[in-house]
Amino acid sequence: MSSPHHAPQSSSTSGQTTNSPSTAHGKPATSSHPPPNAPDPTLTTSSSKDAQGSLPPTPPASTPELSNLKISLRSALRQFPDFPAPGILFEDILPIFANPTLHEGLLRALEIHVGSAKPDVIVGLDARGFLFGPGLALRLGAKFVPVRKRGKLPGPTVQAKYMKEYGEDVFEMQADGIGAGERVIVVDDIIATGGSAAAAGSLVKQLGGELLEYIFILELDFLKGRDKLDAPVYTLLSSQEEKMA
Amino acid sequence: MSSPHHAPQSSSTSGQTTNSPSTAHGKPATSSHPPPNAPDPTLTTSSSKDAQGSLPPTPPASTPELSNLKISLRSALRQFPDFPAPGILFEDILPIFANPTLHEGLLRALEIHVGSAKPDVIVGLDARGFLFGPGLALRLGAKFVPVRKRGKLPGPTVQAKYMKEYGEDVFEMQADGIGAGERVIVVDDIIATGGSAAAAGSLVKQLGGELLEYIFILELDFLKGRDKLDAPVYTLLSSQEEKMA
Repeated sequence: MSSPHHAPQSSSTSGQTTNSPSTAHGKPATSSHPPPNAPDPTLTTSSSKDAQGSLPPTPPASTPELSNLKISLRSALRQFPDFPAPGILFEDILPIFANPTLHEGLLRALEIHVGSAKPDVIVGLDARGFLFGPGLALRLGAKFVPVRKRGKLPGPTVQAKYMKEYGEDVFEMQADGIGAGERVIVVDDIIATGGSAAAAGSLVKQLGGELLEYIFILELDFLKGRDKLDAPVYTLLSSQEEKMA
Repeated sequence: MSSPHHAPQSSSTSGQTTNSPSTAHGKPATSSHPPPNAPDPTLTTSSSKDAQGSLPPTPPASTPELSNLKISLRSALRQFPDFPAPGILFEDILPIFANPTLHEGLLRALEIHVGSAKPDVIVGLDARGFLFGPGLALRLGAKFVPVRKRGKLPGPTVQAKYMKEYGEDVFEMQADGIGAGERVIVVDDIIATGGSAAAAGSLVKQLGGELLEYIFILELDFLKGRDKLDAPVYTLLSSQEEKMA
């Protein structure tokens, strides 16, 4: 009874379904990486150029593997035009989780990217950040701590507001989720306007965490969400640079 | 700035925070397991006694490891009385994910339980089923397919209604998420009234999947949710047998 899905060629951005290694590594805006082993808070800015001298040896050595994983993962995505509303091209990441090889590849790709940064905590956003945040945390030997909508978490919490299409919403994190000085990476599937990610970053900072980086699978570049974030931003796969025509 | 959490002894069910091996294995209602390698659909009932003759050799051999994992996991849970509403004792599973050893132990315990059943698909319920469903799927070499609230999934979907405290809600699954005849396990963190799990099971069956089992971390026994489910039910940890006084 299963129905065929929309073919990728029905999408208006089918030209983006493959991703050459040169493109994947040639975009300065998506290749920023937190300087590992550099606890100096003045280095946790959104510029990676200042820290080139302290880049760790591991990530460059893993580049061919990471490039190949990115190509496989990018080609697995499905595009659904006009979902959930007209004019929006929805990028469906679920085929990755429906294939154990791709699922493993996603976690491996993120692990390669993180390299020797040694985060203490991976924070994942409700709900698609839960799909791979815990798996990444386990691989890195880190805690996984969720950010959830208001009213879902028991006990003392911290809160941060963010804007949705219609009005405000509130994110919460358990108040003992992050200890002062712990090194934190925030993950979600996609960055659009950046509002929800910025709220998650605010929760990390309210608890005294050191926000190393934001990691997303995809980015809607034209919404410039990364401009709202005050820590480095890494997007695994190239994404939509323009709004759907 | 982190705050101390409620200590387990503040809970009205503190006597349940440890779990002896004999208790863990002495409850017929939570030890049911689908007979592996028995595709005969007449065997996929909620009774495990009929299938004792075909129990696989692997799970009994792993019992001491599983028993030890259950004790560690059960003692990590935190109880929050009167959340989210008066009279409800909320069992917080998040400490498991905040400790990589316990997180690994949870996935290992579920892997031991599944044994040689070889599911093709793990279905996880939005949102706490996403915290460990993908990790379990990856370990078992299975697909992970999410069930989500209406309007979250792109493309063709199947739907099932279920009752919430105030009125109905609708779950969806992508129509190509499960192929006809695929062997499926549905997972969620907790079974309460069983309505949402039953809806997830309905989606599996609409797509022609063979529903092997439901797996939960915890169960609110007094709500008798398992009576709504027409496949075997396994709960990893002993749980609340009575409503909070």
